[in-house]
Amino acid sequence: MKELADYVRSIKDFPKEGIVFRDITTVLQNKDGYKLAIDKMIETAKKYDFDYVAGAEARGFILGAPIAYELGKGFIPIRKKGKLPGETVYEEYELEYGKAAVEIHKDAIKKGEKVLLVDDLIATGGTIAASAKLIESLGAEISAMLFLIELVDLKGRERLSKYNVESILCYRGE
Amino acid sequence: MKELADYVRSIKDFPKEGIVFRDITTVLQNKDGYKLAIDKMIETAKKYDFDYVAGAEARGFILGAPIAYELGKGFIPIRKKGKLPGETVYEEYELEYGKAAVEIHKDAIKKGEKVLLVDDLIATGGTIAASAKLIESLGAEISAMLFLIELVDLKGRERLSKYNVESILCYRGE
Repeated sequence: MKELADYVRSIKDFPKEGIVFRDITTVLQNKDGYKLAIDKMIETAKKYDFDYVAGAEARGFILGAPIAYELGKGFIPIRKKGKLPGETVYEEYELEYGKAAVEIHKDAIKKGEKVLLVDDLIATGGTIAASAKLIESLGAEISAMLFLIELVDLKGRERLSKYNVESILCYRGE
Repeated sequence: MKELADYVRSIKDFPKEGIVFRDITTVLQNKDGYKLAIDKMIETAKKYDFDYVAGAEARGFILGAPIAYELGKGFIPIRKKGKLPGETVYEEYELEYGKAAVEIHKDAIKKGEKVLLVDDLIATGGTIAASAKLIESLGAEISAMLFLIELVDLKGRERLSKYNVESILCYRGE
């Protein structure tokens, strides 16, 4: 039987030379791979108590949404700036070159509520740290952060040491 | 009991004056609303035979992904140009001002396979028509197009008359 890692495609030199990109579209598009990935993430999610799943645009939506649906939770999209129609709060973060920002609706979540944060991959953890700050700025709490893939050498886990960080597949050495 | 339409928020003058934006984040973030929406979409999806669910970036991911997972299908992301790491094909389409393009991996789907196309909303149908052409260009077939919301007056359904078009909620007069 194929394991989850067998469905991940590694693409050299994307988005630039020297980077090995872990492509999960080959996981998603295969019915067995997709089921395996979501089932494992759900199993891990169940260790925590939370009211919502929040997913980071856009791959975090594809993994977070079925987890929310299956566990009977609401889904909160964390979007790039300028996409949400209602009143929002946003949080900027540093990229290698320049800045980016993540945004959510101000009324998406209330004080004291609990959120499971989902994304496809943790590298340095910049996007997810900003997403967590955003949710906390509304008085809500991060129950855990759940990733399909962790690039261990980039030490995102250290940066996020105050959170429960969970990942399903670890890659090292690149 | 609340109906699905009760969870949709209407925001005036977004993204510009005179437009009433149908905001589905209030459906997604409510566990009952989200379950109701996905359950109804799954019920409709079951009328058709298909191998994959393809969702359009980014709201189409939040609706398409749980449908794929629940029905045991693979999920194919239809992305904006430049986001996918492998070999791709793309299709341009006209916007009110300028052009946009949708893109998928060349090997995402094979000749003769069947696809359910999912998005949050059908207005004039431009994005979804381009998405369908893209899938057909790889020799695959569109089983149906499934939307949570249809803006009836914008006549997307006429433009897409050669397809099976399904929507859960219809809005008229705006």
